[in-house]
Amino acid sequence: MNTETHPALVGSLSSTAPSEKVINFSPGPTSLPKAVEAQIAASFNKPGFTSLSLSHRAPEFLAILEHTIATAREVMAIPDEYEVLFTHGGGHGQFAALPLNLCTEPSDIATYVVNGTWSARGRDEANRYCDVHTIDASDPDTGKFITFPELTEANVNVDSKYLYLCSNETVNGIELHRLPKLPEALQHIPLVVDASSDFSTKPIDWRGCNVGVLFACASKNIGHPGLTMTVVRKDLLGKASPLCPGVFNYTTNSEAGNLWNTPATFNIEVVGMVMDWLVKEGGVDACERRSIAKSDVLYDVIDNSNGFYATPIDNKTLRSRMNVPFNIAGGDDALTNKFLIESWDKGMVGLRTLTPFGVGDYLRASLYNGVTIGEANILATFMRDFQKENS
Amino acid sequence: MNTETHPALVGSLSSTAPSEKVINFSPGPTSLPKAVEAQIAASFNKPGFTSLSLSHRAPEFLAILEHTIATAREVMAIPDEYEVLFTHGGGHGQFAALPLNLCTEPSDIATYVVNGTWSARGRDEANRYCDVHTIDASDPDTGKFITFPELTEANVNVDSKYLYLCSNETVNGIELHRLPKLPEALQHIPLVVDASSDFSTKPIDWRGCNVGVLFACASKNIGHPGLTMTVVRKDLLGKASPLCPGVFNYTTNSEAGNLWNTPATFNIEVVGMVMDWLVKEGGVDACERRSIAKSDVLYDVIDNSNGFYATPIDNKTLRSRMNVPFNIAGGDDALTNKFLIESWDKGMVGLRTLTPFGVGDYLRASLYNGVTIGEANILATFMRDFQKENS
Repeated sequence: MNTETHPALVGSLSSTAPSEKVINFSPGPTSLPKAVEAQIAASFNKPGFTSLSLSHRAPEFLAILEHTIATAREVMAIPDEYEVLFTHGGGHGQFAALPLNLCTEPSDIATYVVNGTWSARGRDEANRYCDVHTIDASDPDTGKFITFPELTEANVNVDSKYLYLCSNETVNGIELHRLPKLPEALQHIPLVVDASSDFSTKPIDWRGCNVGVLFACASKNIGHPGLTMTVVRKDLLGKASPLCPGVFNYTTNSEAGNLWNTPATFNIEVVGMVMDWLVKEGGVDACERRSIAKSDVLYDVIDNSNGFYATPIDNKTLRSRMNVPFNIAGGDDALTNKFLIESWDKGMVGLRTLTPFGVGDYLRASLYNGVTIGEANILATFMRDFQKENS
Repeated sequence: MNTETHPALVGSLSSTAPSEKVINFSPGPTSLPKAVEAQIAASFNKPGFTSLSLSHRAPEFLAILEHTIATAREVMAIPDEYEVLFTHGGGHGQFAALPLNLCTEPSDIATYVVNGTWSARGRDEANRYCDVHTIDASDPDTGKFITFPELTEANVNVDSKYLYLCSNETVNGIELHRLPKLPEALQHIPLVVDASSDFSTKPIDWRGCNVGVLFACASKNIGHPGLTMTVVRKDLLGKASPLCPGVFNYTTNSEAGNLWNTPATFNIEVVGMVMDWLVKEGGVDACERRSIAKSDVLYDVIDNSNGFYATPIDNKTLRSRMNVPFNIAGGDDALTNKFLIESWDKGMVGLRTLTPFGVGDYLRASLYNGVTIGEANILATFMRDFQKENS
């Protein structure tokens, strides 16, 4: 076999395994829960219009919108003082929208915790619009991101309009299992959270952690690309810069009930289906238990492999439950390719995508809502077997 | 019957007519051609991943992206010196993106032709970012938009970075059946076109009309909400303001091959399906013939109704083929409601949506790619019958 041209090595998702055996470990966009995918398919096979064809002003779509927001509020226990907005432009759109909404003047200060790929991207975009104060969490010796810093008066600018963090760094494998509570002297600063890759997988203490804005692009846990859910505390409305594009303006979109311009109608319906599924599957606490179970089986294999597998994050309280990065035999090319091809042949796809944001030789198993505990176990078993045969 | 609460009067699309008889005349979002809707449904019923689940970095999605762009280039005869971008944020996103990409400085000048609802919205958004010169085409006596002005050195600012127009005003029913050719003294100014509601329904003379940028939100003729297709002439890249959000920056998105951030993957696949359908149905010239035929039957009924029906645009060369606005007996409330209810009962829906942009008592029949000539004829016949019974 010419491994150079094997589809597994160029990120193909079309494994030749039987369809029901294929498991999508992609870092997102990725598969939704099978029950949701079946519901979407069914919606295209009944008489009448699907949401693809609904005017956003029609009562049929307004009911979908209302249901999606109400169920999201229920699942994530979002208090009444927060607005739920469906915004365009993905997470990257919010990277710009945040400073444009929360900083009226370019001289307004915002503090960014940079501890991985996505918080760095968010910070870079904010640099256009406000006075950014960066807390650089990279390792001073290696430059690698392997931790999350303590937040104190010593590193957070007390005049910040907001304090920004990314609660799960998909590339680096660092997750805050709970949002931080700031010391008293910083409690006037609203927290802004990029929860794109962990939203819906654990509870959020909105009030206790002084969350001002939290956003999540849909395409990891709650839907598919083209939509972002942005939750904004209402006291932060009305502060936008005059330079804020209308589509990004939280205030005008809130006043217009998410209809300032045409929202991504079908994408919103899909988020509603995922929220219904979460309710049925026991809510966010049950989801967290599943996330812990899924990631534990993989980290256990890695930690008990005598170094055959390695993961970059030593601090277990910061290891991502969403994305488990691992390398094989210290990043050995031949073994890594063999692993990719053999797992792909068995239906495990998405462990390496051709993203420009990869870290060295690490593969990544992403364990969003579309992946079951049983599927994580299949990968864990394969990893153990592969080690036995190749070490 | 209590007409006050009849679903037809609040914009419901759920007519009780048999499903195969329901025709969606919504101004968009609206139905796609039935063959495309069937293809979408089929894609959810075959084994393997749908594009909802595909990583945007996977070769399977890259093939979809490449196919969609290539087919759009073929259908619309887009020359090589133009980039095809799939942008977030709808048409409203482009209202901001345009000045942010084409005007490096806030003092840069742009001329806007304002002859309806959408060109006014585009102009209002541009006001944030550049020095806007407006050509106000409203009627000096009534304030109404019923025409399109001649463009000359007398009304176009010769120092403009671009000249902006909307080629089909959906609310007002005004369409440019061909883009204007500017007089020689203005030919250095690139044309910027909001073609959101008429793209793909007639040929575009890209070079002859000096088109610089043309954008079309997908949800009228070529897809569903959450995606905009933006065609940019390459010599206009590299001029963006430092304030341009990354997701709106044509240059970075062009350099990244539409993958600067996660694009709306499924929406792009659907646009590709519509482009395939257009090829199969005879291309853009055949599409224009169908558009003429569909709108002609309705305008004929109106013009031959002895004033029972009226349409606001007298100049037949400017009447929209996409959206036919009409009122009944001078806007009589009781007759209009009767018309809406009776047509809705027969399956004709979307003639009145609860948009805040409506013009007076006018209903609108929108005739995008999802509506066939036969379906336009059904409405024409109903209109004639209704007149006979009620005049």
